Amino acid sequence: MKRILAVIGPASCTEHQAELAEHVGTLIAKRGAFLICGGRGGVMEAACKGAASVGGTTIGILPGHDVGEGNPYLTIAIPTGLGEARNAMVASAGQAVIAIGGAYGTLSEIALALKAGRRVIGLETWSATDHAENELDILTARDAEEAVEIAIAEHTDA
Amino acid sequence: MKRILAVIGPASCTEHQAELAEHVGTLIAKRGAFLICGGRGGVMEAACKGAASVGGTTIGILPGHDVGEGNPYLTIAIPTGLGEARNAMVASAGQAVIAIGGAYGTLSEIALALKAGRRVIGLETWSATDHAENELDILTARDAEEAVEIAIAEHTDA
Amino acid sequence: MKRILAVIGPASCTEHQAELAEHVGTLIAKRGAFLICGGRGGVMEAACKGAASVGGTTIGILPGHDVGEGNPYLTIAIPTGLGEARNAMVASAGQAVIAIGGAYGTLSEIALALKAGRRVIGLETWSATDHAENELDILTARDAEEAVEIAIAEHTDA
Amino acid sequence: MKRILAVIGPASCTEHQAELAEHVGTLIAKRGAFLICGGRGGVMEAACKGAASVGGTTIGILPGHDVGEGNPYLTIAIPTGLGEARNAMVASAGQAVIAIGGAYGTLSEIALALKAGRRVIGLETWSATDHAENELDILTARDAEEAVEIAIAEHTDA
Repeated sequence: MKRILAVIGPASCTEHQAELAEHVGTLIAKRGAFLICGGRGGVMEAACKGAASVGGTTIGILPGHDVGEGNPYLTIAIPTGLGEARNAMVASAGQAVIAIGGAYGTLSEIALALKAGRRVIGLETWSATDHAENELDILTARDAEEAVEIAIAEHTDA
Repeated sequence: MKRILAVIGPASCTEHQAELAEHVGTLIAKRGAFLICGGRGGVMEAACKGAASVGGTTIGILPGHDVGEGNPYLTIAIPTGLGEARNAMVASAGQAVIAIGGAYGTLSEIALALKAGRRVIGLETWSATDHAENELDILTARDAEEAVEIAIAEHTDA
Repeated sequence: MKRILAVIGPASCTEHQAELAEHVGTLIAKRGAFLICGGRGGVMEAACKGAASVGGTTIGILPGHDVGEGNPYLTIAIPTGLGEARNAMVASAGQAVIAIGGAYGTLSEIALALKAGRRVIGLETWSATDHAENELDILTARDAEEAVEIAIAEHTDA
Repeated sequence: MKRILAVIGPASCTEHQAELAEHVGTLIAKRGAFLICGGRGGVMEAACKGAASVGGTTIGILPGHDVGEGNPYLTIAIPTGLGEARNAMVASAGQAVIAIGGAYGTLSEIALALKAGRRVIGLETWSATDHAENELDILTARDAEEAVEIAIAEHTDA
């Protein structure tokens, strides 16, 4: 079975977040892992583009029924028709999760990934604290390289 | 069609959060609305208990297949077998959402509710900021009465 | 917890099937049970209409996100956004399932209900045999009254 | 994007059905397509074994959260936690669907695939007729080769 890392992030992101995502995707593929994501634009597309540029395999778990809504860098498009409920799948399908930027959907995936016991590594993403001042258990990485390094190490330990 | 308000919160909560939830549940029922939740213990059970104490109707969207995992104050138990993916349903099934306390599951429901365009009212729950310092769009209520007041008003406007 | 019976059938049906469904809905409500269905037109709407005509409670598990896609006889509309994956929920949410008429969606619900261990009672619906000539385990009822009688009895035994 | 064909069938099957499935899996991989299935034993495992024997790529959409429930011939294991609701995903993820043998889960997948507009090719699987004597629109293949031939042709046309 292949090692799979998830990249989560919004369909609309800043240029810098897209660069981060593309770099992360490239590094994931270079390390021999498959990349799984929500399959759409923005952070998801940039990460897939990076992975594809070095011959990596990318998997998109799409919210709708239409393969055409996937970005052009997907090796495997899986249309779920589940809408946002597919976020729970993306969140748990990777052995570790790298979150880049983020809107509400990304925050839901971070929370679902943590609930599923996955390590979450953040790059320019959400921070949150509950009422008891506990912080969300995200490891903040300095850059794409550190993010992928931690994600790969997590999985090796698992 | 009945007005439905969602109450979200963890299966394990503080005594004060349980009191808040029970009060919220009572007020929802008194206002003639149905209460929908994840159907289990803690905040969910306390809210259902409150609603049931004044003859209200409670709906539990359960993660598993077994009706027996629901709390004893459910009028209607809907076993989904969807696991955490059922959170997306709870989040969007109410016309407004009251979040009390919260673990990871609750945070995912808050994010999914906001994504679905629902008003989220918080009592002792998560706060979060994204990388651009935008805060999560939760209305913080002072107490159960204000929370239900806002939730009912939201729906009337909707 | 309330007794819940599921009625499944297509959004487009014959006039006779609509009459059967309406009669089934009326009888379910008269027996004090709640009616759960996919929430849309055809068989689902007719069954809800019957239940509503005698003050019964009806629950619609909708495929989309929009409460407006529900039929006008729903007491409780639950938008899932799950598309056809919501069929698995409808199939297992009732303690017994009455299938009337049927297109592909109905056949999937019959199969999922049987897989979930629910009793399925059929009125003018699918018959099927597998390669080993085993027939699908549907109890064929003569009319609406017998169908509801069997469904209620099933649940009492369960 | 890769061509993906789905193979559906029960976790418990006859020896002959396992041989059919293994042959189908081998042929799918030889034709350069990826194979998607429910990821477990029986027909699913045999098909994956066939594909893997010639270096093919196999994708398993698992019902639970645990990658360990997948068969040993999976290249990519996607744990969904959706239970039987994942059947809707398997049914629509392939551009065509080959059904071999079958229990209730398989019948639900056949119905969901037809509902999603997918061509379904059958080998020793269900036959069904609705009340109006319409037969289920399954193309019965003589053998594994014909089944894969039709599935590939379908997709080329699509």
